[in-house]
Amino acid sequence: MTASTPPFRRLALVGLGLIGGSIARAARRAGLVGRIAGHDASADVRATVEALGFCDEVHEVAAGAVHGADLVILCTPVGAFGDVARSIAPALAPGAILSDVGSTKGSVVAAVAPHVPPGVHFIPAHPVAGTEHSGPAAGFAGLFEGRWCLLTPPDGADPAQVERLAAFWRALGCQVDVMDVTRHDRVLAVTSHLPHLIAYTIVGTAADLETVTRAEAIRYSAGGFRDMTRIAASDPVMWRDVFLNNREAVLEVLGRFSEELLLLQRAVRWGDGETLERVFSRGREIRRGVIEAGQDTAGLRGPAPQ
Amino acid sequence: MTASTPPFRRLALVGLGLIGGSIARAARRAGLVGRIAGHDASADVRATVEALGFCDEVHEVAAGAVHGADLVILCTPVGAFGDVARSIAPALAPGAILSDVGSTKGSVVAAVAPHVPPGVHFIPAHPVAGTEHSGPAAGFAGLFEGRWCLLTPPDGADPAQVERLAAFWRALGCQVDVMDVTRHDRVLAVTSHLPHLIAYTIVGTAADLETVTRAEAIRYSAGGFRDMTRIAASDPVMWRDVFLNNREAVLEVLGRFSEELLLLQRAVRWGDGETLERVFSRGREIRRGVIEAGQDTAGLRGPAPQ
Repeated sequence: MTASTPPFRRLALVGLGLIGGSIARAARRAGLVGRIAGHDASADVRATVEALGFCDEVHEVAAGAVHGADLVILCTPVGAFGDVARSIAPALAPGAILSDVGSTKGSVVAAVAPHVPPGVHFIPAHPVAGTEHSGPAAGFAGLFEGRWCLLTPPDGADPAQVERLAAFWRALGCQVDVMDVTRHDRVLAVTSHLPHLIAYTIVGTAADLETVTRAEAIRYSAGGFRDMTRIAASDPVMWRDVFLNNREAVLEVLGRFSEELLLLQRAVRWGDGETLERVFSRGREIRRGVIEAGQDTAGLRGPAPQ
Repeated sequence: MTASTPPFRRLALVGLGLIGGSIARAARRAGLVGRIAGHDASADVRATVEALGFCDEVHEVAAGAVHGADLVILCTPVGAFGDVARSIAPALAPGAILSDVGSTKGSVVAAVAPHVPPGVHFIPAHPVAGTEHSGPAAGFAGLFEGRWCLLTPPDGADPAQVERLAAFWRALGCQVDVMDVTRHDRVLAVTSHLPHLIAYTIVGTAADLETVTRAEAIRYSAGGFRDMTRIAASDPVMWRDVFLNNREAVLEVLGRFSEELLLLQRAVRWGDGETLERVFSRGREIRRGVIEAGQDTAGLRGPAPQ
């Protein structure tokens, strides 16, 4: 390819929040697309995107953005995917790749696959990246650098098209892995959905105590609570939809979490320092793994204790 | 005072890990102390401190460091405080301030107060600051900047000495609040002890699943798990002692946490999107409070979702 022939002629982004806005900026910067057409259901968001200028066209109707696109990426909360897929199906061009960025994949396949016309390549994807901010102004081109993008192509997907989408994400800075839908939903229940549900729970607990005021919790939050508030500041609608759409895997891992918590609670109650120290020591090992895997940097900020 | 007469002639630090090592560096930089004497029970730590050079004297016996000091700060894990206080008591100089940095205060008063000789000013303190790293090499002079230091002086403490200690912490960069011991332990159970226990639980859960490997959890950790591993990388012995020494307050807040979690678990099970969204929306409000209170910066890093 040369600079004048980007790998995709026209990228359509359905949903222009943090992730859609970041894909647009990153794809433009990497020279991956000719034109970028966007749609968002919110008039406010559309106006912001017009002002920011990261789309060539902003459409009020999703099908308008999708028309003639060779790469279509759904970036709305996953609960909207069924309706969106139904409404854009007639506008999808034969040969186009239809993908998404949803955090759950079983539900996405169930909601979208029935609407995909013959000749359109449906390849779900999930870039494991984000911040606690949301909206088109929060997006930035570097969001995906060093992160993983997980593709969950259905049986019978065209390997050449899967590779084409993988190359797109690699050019945005991701490492790409292919996995099956069930495995994806189980892994993400552990690495993403559980931590978010628990962070929301901790923040909710602190908000409602009789013995400690909300102002006190905020004021002295540097001992760990503030890190939970960062996670719990993520988009409420997106996360509502995640939990509504990955129920089984989330409930399973919550069961395991509760068992582990009871073990520690019992150790606190009975003054069992050995158990506490043994469990706590494991935390360091796993932290070392995360740093070695390049998924965080040691000492980028001094957050927590004591 | 002039540059040649620092407010404290001799500072003794008992325990030379992250916090002790940071106090030494910060106090030296701010010109708050004439000499710094340190003790640590570990020969390895003492050798590291000698090499780093942030103490003028490194003692094998705690009483040796304390001898002649006008400010003594206990910086070991709180479980060691009783033994340490007993061993240094005979060496404490009349008029000296005896303080600490422990994360629990009720237990500290119970362990230390019986050993304090007449004429020594016992004023417990807790700088709410730290990182996930430990040991003397992890300390740095800026650790306390912008953080809170909570003083819990006993009834009848000399206000002039409390102010002297408060001025010391302010000079290290802290804001200082005075509160009673019970309140401190309740507030910290919420803002620090609960988040740590839960982060350890999440990391422990991920380490032991049959359905998802530890390597997968680490590899795809950018969705929230990695932030939990950072908190769960904190010093295991220090945290063991925190939970052994603030049992009642921790168990009480754990009870509330479990109620809140059951509410969310039920909402996930029954597909109650309204409850999920309502609880999740509260997270953003409280996050805003944390940022406005100067306890974190918006967008310092893009950590979590989706």
